[in-house]
Amino acid sequence: MPVHCSADPRLQVASHSFSAAQGPIPHIVRTRIANACVPSTDGALSMPFTSPAFRAIQDALDAALRRELQMPDDVDILFLPCSASTHFALVPMNLLPASGHAIYIDSGHWSARATGEARRYGRIETMPAAAACDGRPFGNGAAYCHYTANETADGLQFHTPPCADALLVADMTSALIAAPIDWSRHGLVYAGAQKSLGIAGLSMVFVRRSLLHESPQTAPRVLDYSALSAGASRLSTPPVFAMHCALYMLEWIAEQGGSAALRARQDARAARIYTLLDRPDTPYRTRPQKSWRSQINPCFDFEHPGLDADFLRDAAAVNLHGLAGHPECGGVRISLYIGQNDAAIDALCDFLQSWSPPRS
Amino acid sequence: MPVHCSADPRLQVASHSFSAAQGPIPHIVRTRIANACVPSTDGALSMPFTSPAFRAIQDALDAALRRELQMPDDVDILFLPCSASTHFALVPMNLLPASGHAIYIDSGHWSARATGEARRYGRIETMPAAAACDGRPFGNGAAYCHYTANETADGLQFHTPPCADALLVADMTSALIAAPIDWSRHGLVYAGAQKSLGIAGLSMVFVRRSLLHESPQTAPRVLDYSALSAGASRLSTPPVFAMHCALYMLEWIAEQGGSAALRARQDARAARIYTLLDRPDTPYRTRPQKSWRSQINPCFDFEHPGLDADFLRDAAAVNLHGLAGHPECGGVRISLYIGQNDAAIDALCDFLQSWSPPRS
Repeated sequence: MPVHCSADPRLQVASHSFSAAQGPIPHIVRTRIANACVPSTDGALSMPFTSPAFRAIQDALDAALRRELQMPDDVDILFLPCSASTHFALVPMNLLPASGHAIYIDSGHWSARATGEARRYGRIETMPAAAACDGRPFGNGAAYCHYTANETADGLQFHTPPCADALLVADMTSALIAAPIDWSRHGLVYAGAQKSLGIAGLSMVFVRRSLLHESPQTAPRVLDYSALSAGASRLSTPPVFAMHCALYMLEWIAEQGGSAALRARQDARAARIYTLLDRPDTPYRTRPQKSWRSQINPCFDFEHPGLDADFLRDAAAVNLHGLAGHPECGGVRISLYIGQNDAAIDALCDFLQSWSPPRS
Repeated sequence: MPVHCSADPRLQVASHSFSAAQGPIPHIVRTRIANACVPSTDGALSMPFTSPAFRAIQDALDAALRRELQMPDDVDILFLPCSASTHFALVPMNLLPASGHAIYIDSGHWSARATGEARRYGRIETMPAAAACDGRPFGNGAAYCHYTANETADGLQFHTPPCADALLVADMTSALIAAPIDWSRHGLVYAGAQKSLGIAGLSMVFVRRSLLHESPQTAPRVLDYSALSAGASRLSTPPVFAMHCALYMLEWIAEQGGSAALRARQDARAARIYTLLDRPDTPYRTRPQKSWRSQINPCFDFEHPGLDADFLRDAAAVNLHGLAGHPECGGVRISLYIGQNDAAIDALCDFLQSWSPPRS
């Protein structure tokens, strides 16, 4: 018996969240998940990970990811309960030999976090993002070259991958589905689920099988990529419910026309917002330079410092929330994760167009 | 607007799961969780971990755990997305100095898993469970003494903690709420949530603050107990939804009269089942010896080998599921996690009483 959870539209307050931490989950998907919570046997809350029913969920999730990310057959998909930041350590623990080194591209807040953690496990060289994409190859001899595909705090995105001669390793947490992956260049891609594919508590690693061998360092066995691959991600209890949620999101993605259709929608939304931000008469000043601006997390400051608080207060008054910039960067951040609905974008664009600073 | 998800009882098939992997979640709790999935803003699926609303959830969860586990103020609670097995590595990485050693009590399948993992990080001595509880103190000078409070695969439980002279570290994954914790003896307790407190994807560490200092080994920073304590378990995205579920389970526990009332119910259920299994005329043969039998996972074999398949087939025919023993142990395993309902226990007891082996 289905859950009846379509709220009466007359009772709904149109409240929109643009949080960078958690992507919106469409109403129809939340309803389906709510329904899946109710059954006692083989419901999404109650399903033992050892059951055939769960194996079917995992197989379906694997197949849907392969389809939407156009993944080659020699790439394994690992499902882990840990956060994406855990891979800042697991990647060097699994891939960086004692005698080797890796290159980390410096593009902002999250690449700095990844670099700082990797330095605890081996020799790391860094390179500025601009130099990594200027067309001159680099990194010959490195175990891998790591980059953060989209910097949520800085509003910066790689529109082409770094031109490294080494295998690329990418943190795609905020760019999954929203940006295509060139599999001819990438050895390993990792991402947390909560921005594009449901809820926190699930991270995924897409890794070429040829890179999986005994880890050079002592990673906890249940987080060792090779062991996880050999054990079908069930060495210990996987995040059963979060995997259900990811599958419901992928079902919705397919209903929307697939990842390519959502990317086109994403680009149109970003273009609409940047057009508003770039008008000559606005108080908005986007960052970084145009060729690096993020299609996923447009960030901006103000012509005159101190207007952030006014903007955020006025936005909240019309039920536009989660727009404060990252604490280390300030300003305003608009997170355009794929689950966002058109009404939220319309409301935000209306506000961006009409807002003006208070007269002092 | 609430979700209406009380299924029509006339349409329900009474199907009961005794799975060891995932504890039952009561119907009222599943309904509340389903309702919490629906809202778009600050719903359990959509809540950013950076929001004040989530901090309130975490604070309430912390307070409820302290209350139900009667935890002293000098114990910190850490919330991690990783599985309990991850702590097989994290405990020695965090607590075992290079010059020290730890004692691991050998009681069955899960203690062997914990010991094998700990040996990768330092010097480990093992001790049989019987010797650890015979009243003679041991372990003076060890960094800690680790034991598995309840062995789900073997049907064995410590009814008193080991009499070590070292600080005790306990894996309470299957015994949380169901067994009291003597805080005067324990330095660290860890547990996954999915057997007693909701769903997989959340593990908890209860650790004395005096043990938290810089880790002797290079654990991933987001899994480092000291760093997690300093960062209020929000160094990276915590398992927001699983923490909601744990809080709903703790609310239900309070409504049942609290953990002490549930323990009394648990003991009565175990006594009822063992009375049936111990009748002289049955084909059932419980393991291990009576003073070590588990109140949480009663396990039994058969007088004549090969009856397991008959028993499990006949049980499934009356909708009693999840009763197969651990693959390495065989036989039958009854998991009595705290969320189980009376109807399931009644149906199981009726079946245990009436079942007889097929005539050959």
